[in-house]
Amino acid sequence: MTAYTELMAFERKTQALEQVAGRLGWDRETVMPRGAAPQRAEEQGVLAEMLHARRTDPQIGAWLELARDDSDPVRAANLRHIRRSFARTTRIPADLAAEIARVTSLAQGIWAEARAAEDFAGFAPELEKIVALTRLQADALAEPGESRYDALVQEYEPGGSEAFVTGLFDAMRPRLVALREKIAGSGKDPAPLTGQFDEASQHALARELALAFGYDLGHGRIDKAVHPFSSGSGLDVRITMRTDPADPFNCIYSTIHETGHAGYELGIDRSHLLTPLGAGVSLGVHESQSRIYENQIGRSRAFAGHLFGRMTDLFGPLSTADADAFYAAINRARPGFIRTEADEVHYNLHVMLRCDLERALISGDLAVADLPGAWNDRFANDFGMTVDKPSNGVLQDVHWAGGAIGYFPTYTLGNVYAGCLMQALRRDLPDLDSALAAGDTAPATGWLRENLQRHGGLYEPPETISRACRFAPTVGPLLDYLEDKFGALYGL
Amino acid sequence: MTAYTELMAFERKTQALEQVAGRLGWDRETVMPRGAAPQRAEEQGVLAEMLHARRTDPQIGAWLELARDDSDPVRAANLRHIRRSFARTTRIPADLAAEIARVTSLAQGIWAEARAAEDFAGFAPELEKIVALTRLQADALAEPGESRYDALVQEYEPGGSEAFVTGLFDAMRPRLVALREKIAGSGKDPAPLTGQFDEASQHALARELALAFGYDLGHGRIDKAVHPFSSGSGLDVRITMRTDPADPFNCIYSTIHETGHAGYELGIDRSHLLTPLGAGVSLGVHESQSRIYENQIGRSRAFAGHLFGRMTDLFGPLSTADADAFYAAINRARPGFIRTEADEVHYNLHVMLRCDLERALISGDLAVADLPGAWNDRFANDFGMTVDKPSNGVLQDVHWAGGAIGYFPTYTLGNVYAGCLMQALRRDLPDLDSALAAGDTAPATGWLRENLQRHGGLYEPPETISRACRFAPTVGPLLDYLEDKFGALYGL
Repeated sequence: MTAYTELMAFERKTQALEQVAGRLGWDRETVMPRGAAPQRAEEQGVLAEMLHARRTDPQIGAWLELARDDSDPVRAANLRHIRRSFARTTRIPADLAAEIARVTSLAQGIWAEARAAEDFAGFAPELEKIVALTRLQADALAEPGESRYDALVQEYEPGGSEAFVTGLFDAMRPRLVALREKIAGSGKDPAPLTGQFDEASQHALARELALAFGYDLGHGRIDKAVHPFSSGSGLDVRITMRTDPADPFNCIYSTIHETGHAGYELGIDRSHLLTPLGAGVSLGVHESQSRIYENQIGRSRAFAGHLFGRMTDLFGPLSTADADAFYAAINRARPGFIRTEADEVHYNLHVMLRCDLERALISGDLAVADLPGAWNDRFANDFGMTVDKPSNGVLQDVHWAGGAIGYFPTYTLGNVYAGCLMQALRRDLPDLDSALAAGDTAPATGWLRENLQRHGGLYEPPETISRACRFAPTVGPLLDYLEDKFGALYGL
Repeated sequence: MTAYTELMAFERKTQALEQVAGRLGWDRETVMPRGAAPQRAEEQGVLAEMLHARRTDPQIGAWLELARDDSDPVRAANLRHIRRSFARTTRIPADLAAEIARVTSLAQGIWAEARAAEDFAGFAPELEKIVALTRLQADALAEPGESRYDALVQEYEPGGSEAFVTGLFDAMRPRLVALREKIAGSGKDPAPLTGQFDEASQHALARELALAFGYDLGHGRIDKAVHPFSSGSGLDVRITMRTDPADPFNCIYSTIHETGHAGYELGIDRSHLLTPLGAGVSLGVHESQSRIYENQIGRSRAFAGHLFGRMTDLFGPLSTADADAFYAAINRARPGFIRTEADEVHYNLHVMLRCDLERALISGDLAVADLPGAWNDRFANDFGMTVDKPSNGVLQDVHWAGGAIGYFPTYTLGNVYAGCLMQALRRDLPDLDSALAAGDTAPATGWLRENLQRHGGLYEPPETISRACRFAPTVGPLLDYLEDKFGALYGL
């Protein structure tokens, strides 16, 4: 007990320091004066060094030896998280960790330049270094019997594995491709929303929607940033948004998405504050919250009716003349080059492509030099489109430049989990649509908070979902939902 | 050399961490959601603990032993700062430092409640604890032959002493009191500016003035806060402002004041970034910059003419019908209870009162229970007014509640230094007023940057001033300036 208490006191300070590091990142992206960047890099470097020293402090190992697992579920879960984190962090040699940090920090700038110049060859040497370093990292992390990719996936999804991810994808792919082809063959293409939309009114509407989805400004704030994100855990979880005068849906749905991430963090029981249980349990579960807020709830027919009314109030008559046309416009399903702009049908095909290619890079089945060709072939096959330039293809995402290999599958995992949660939510809340039609998301977000969010890291990711759903997660509910929704929209 | 290099690398990280701690304070006062306060307190506590551990790291002592002083002035100055800081920090026993932090943290809340309730007795037990702890702190800090108050003054003004401070005050007091009495007996009382002033326009004007005084938004920003302050060193120095619809001078002059503080930090040679020389050398020298920007420049007749024009542009005709009446309004000299609202003539009498009372508290000549009576007697004597309630008297400042005993003299020191600097500035820039009349402060702020600000901590405080002035600082220039300025305004 004493060892546990001391360990948790140490951990609490580490968690507080992590929040500080996160807050500096928020500051950099929202309010920091431009000229402060070099100093900020040093400040963040010092914090990273101190955090690494704390996370690898040998005293943690000594405490873990003494603190036996406990029948108390909270204590047992805390020990499980700390044990896993300590094992993984200490397995990476310090010089490898420093080299990965150095190379990926530089590579992100080089990637941005290469993307702007449409020059994959300019980025290829960096990616080769990153793949080589990531293999070393995976070798250091892998437990006996695990593949390199297993070890990498677990960096983002504790308990995940290559077999788990590919199993999901194999089960989804045929039905997704069939749905995609039916939509393409339907001859239907709903009209998009067109026009110009005052950015201050967009901002006000996005704020109204964040509050409607339960965002608490007593523990958060909304600022402008180049990219929307959610930042922080515990009592201070901030989101950002951006506006585009020609595309209000960008602002609206990215804000609802980030409100989902923030809602998860803010929904965790306050008793877990600054402990390993006080943050979302995995990226996949996190993404399930952002995606169910954004898509299953925010892009539902019922909520679309409410949003159509609010937008008509704010912007006057819309190019989509009624709620049905508006609903079709927010759910246009068309192939496109860019993952982050993809609709619900095509999104997971983007993810699968990246996942297969990064697995091949790590295993050595694919050389970096052959990556653009492999990307473009696969894209032509899956989307029926020819990639016209690297920024529309292999250079579009920053993830690999940042060393985040094994991250992409969590996006699809989030969608699969969101599908399961929505099925359970509709089972438990048969009147959900009448509330959503009135703009009231409280029954839905309240259900998610009560059944999932409040637990934070108490349960492992699949158990977190299965406890909320009261069934084990599978791809079925998501695919059923997509076939129903887009079948109706496209008259399939 | 190796020891010096290692020491400086260690120091650089400590400085970066101090900037992080400062940034968290800025965040708390400007953008933090209210509900985040308990978590933020833990975050700041962890940073304070890590900073204390770094500042008292025995390795610093070992490096200092090995790093001999050097003929290179930058290296010698860095070693002097680090040696002094290490000696002072390590002399305070850890349990005393923790107790001071704990008591003063609580006392500030209790002070705020006592002030709101006009209840000195509610605060007295805290102040008794603080005086007792501060005596222990001073005993730990004092070098042989130094008084307790010497040791305390040096916390804020390196190289300062009780004799230095009281010597200044003794030299100033008779002429200040005589000037005050002549003004009171003049029968003149210029009309104040009256009216309502749009807060957004005040904000825009304050921003324009900050830029006019050389503030660099590439390395700073201006936000609203309850109290105006400047925060940060190096490449990121932020200021805050507040607006009052009935009193635009509050916003204008506090912004110019904070621009002076920020201008000093931003004016330091970038080669000193994140070293002990990379911040203002003392509170007295810092205040000289904020006060010369605010008063000697900002409240000059020449600049008042420019400001009158800009305010007329923004707000229409003013109650002060011409630039002379406007100039008289911004320089009204009247006794008042509140230090922070005092004019240039009365301000230093407020400071002297506090300095004498806190010296008596520390020496034991005055008991906390007798403090309100002593305050009110002295106030009646110096200002000719009867204190009506504690919030207008002994409870008005937070300093003592925060444990800042020995701080007040630096305000007057800043005014004295500002007087010297203005005399030198006018000597070197005979055409200064024609630039100021056109709203151009660049000659003045450029002179200050070149002759003072850029050195940061390179020279000790008095040498910093005497190098800029090319004469040793005395009280004469400030008193001459005040007698000339207010003599003309009040026809003395």
